[in-house]
Amino acid sequence: MTDPQDAIDAAGDVREAERDPRIGERTAGEIQDGIPFIGAGPGDPGLLTVTGRELVETADLVVHAGSLVNSELLDAYCADAEQVSSIGKDLEELIPLMRDAYETGRSVVRLHSGDPAIYGAALEQMDALEHEGVPTYLVPGVTSAFAASATLRTQLTLNGVANHVAFTRPRGETLDPDEDHIGEFVEMGDVTTCIYLGTHAIAETMERLVEMGHDLDTPVAVVYHASWPDEDVIEGTIGTIGERVAAAGYRASAMVIIGDAATGAGYERSYLYGDWANRGTDENESEADD
Amino acid sequence: MTDPQDAIDAAGDVREAERDPRIGERTAGEIQDGIPFIGAGPGDPGLLTVTGRELVETADLVVHAGSLVNSELLDAYCADAEQVSSIGKDLEELIPLMRDAYETGRSVVRLHSGDPAIYGAALEQMDALEHEGVPTYLVPGVTSAFAASATLRTQLTLNGVANHVAFTRPRGETLDPDEDHIGEFVEMGDVTTCIYLGTHAIAETMERLVEMGHDLDTPVAVVYHASWPDEDVIEGTIGTIGERVAAAGYRASAMVIIGDAATGAGYERSYLYGDWANRGTDENESEADD
Repeated sequence: MTDPQDAIDAAGDVREAERDPRIGERTAGEIQDGIPFIGAGPGDPGLLTVTGRELVETADLVVHAGSLVNSELLDAYCADAEQVSSIGKDLEELIPLMRDAYETGRSVVRLHSGDPAIYGAALEQMDALEHEGVPTYLVPGVTSAFAASATLRTQLTLNGVANHVAFTRPRGETLDPDEDHIGEFVEMGDVTTCIYLGTHAIAETMERLVEMGHDLDTPVAVVYHASWPDEDVIEGTIGTIGERVAAAGYRASAMVIIGDAATGAGYERSYLYGDWANRGTDENESEADD
Repeated sequence: MTDPQDAIDAAGDVREAERDPRIGERTAGEIQDGIPFIGAGPGDPGLLTVTGRELVETADLVVHAGSLVNSELLDAYCADAEQVSSIGKDLEELIPLMRDAYETGRSVVRLHSGDPAIYGAALEQMDALEHEGVPTYLVPGVTSAFAASATLRTQLTLNGVANHVAFTRPRGETLDPDEDHIGEFVEMGDVTTCIYLGTHAIAETMERLVEMGHDLDTPVAVVYHASWPDEDVIEGTIGTIGERVAAAGYRASAMVIIGDAATGAGYERSYLYGDWANRGTDENESEADD
């Protein structure tokens, strides 16, 4: 196979020269030729999309993100398919595995946790597969921040409290300190900051916010394994959450939500009904805002 | 019924005093007693969740966000249910309507577009209903930004290109100029800025970015009606997109994505496999990053 980074760079050159015709010909959610890269959602099998379920149920080979995809989902929808975990496999191993299965006529799906557009590393696999002649496409999913807000019985935007939402990660293995914007998002005051994070890094992330002078009383909610059977919620503030999470002893994935919206308190009714998108665009729906 | 803002304020007081026991007892995606506030997803009926579909299919009354929910979804899943559009109805009308139906033993669902946590105004209806003695809960959904990125065949985060994502709206009817953070998000350089916007406001939003001195060549993709049959994509830059959208003549909803990730070009492979959440948290999955 071609070196994956060369395939990625070649795909980038093509993108800059001309639009992939499928962008105009196909719509999101449409089933296409090739290997679908499916957002499995946050964990609960019921939070997979209808189309995602259909594709997984009819697959011969399901390549999934190991323990990051709830095994209940695999048991419910593809117990009879061959299942392969991507954990510990690099592109050099994953791409031939998917390519060869596809070329022998098997139905192959790739299951990422949450939505593949958010910290998903789906595109590099897609580019490498396409370079090998295997068509691919994306099927969106529910990200864990939305499951966390459902658990917390709140919204990530709330009128008069939070007007914007940031999905972010702190400095670490893959992010330099100057690429860590958590402090800037929190500083804006009306942004709900959702950190996709292992629980191990919560305490140090909060310590940095304290050092930067942020309000110790800013609410923080940590939702561990949102929508999984062992889902848990730890609530606190920038000043207290680190210790509370450490005391709970969790490892692995958690969603950290910083901001007043985490509490669901103190907001104002909108007085506008319909939806965000139609505000002022249509006479009949000019009061729209839901 | 109680004045809705009073009900909201009372709910806020309760939240500050004690955690709603359902937060600890129920997980996201679980079907609960009461009226579910369901994210309908971006439009395509196949992008509703499995649980959302189950609830809509068994509903007697579906209160939906009018033309913002694809009528194909309603036709597919609840053609025999009573369907009521929320467009033009305020809380004083919607709450008794849902309460009375629920109290007479009917199965009631509330369908919001996308995910209810993002610009959804779901919580004020939930608080008002709960104040009237009607239990409610949230069922998350796929937001239109994820459908747009699937259509564009890209990710909103891309290694070496975009480390963070912002969901935002510009100044306007409900947002003061100092609450408009679009320029700040774009300024950060490695944030993919997703604007939930009517197409009418795109040109003026881009003009403000130009006035602030942002790079005219920054890529912008506008996805109109992501995942709907009439989905369309208009690509350009901060300097060109306003004119192109105006020429296309669209009104109503569009997703505006600003940043290099909109093109899917120029990124680096991650070298890490698994998923975001497990980075360094587990010996077996320490190379995890998908």
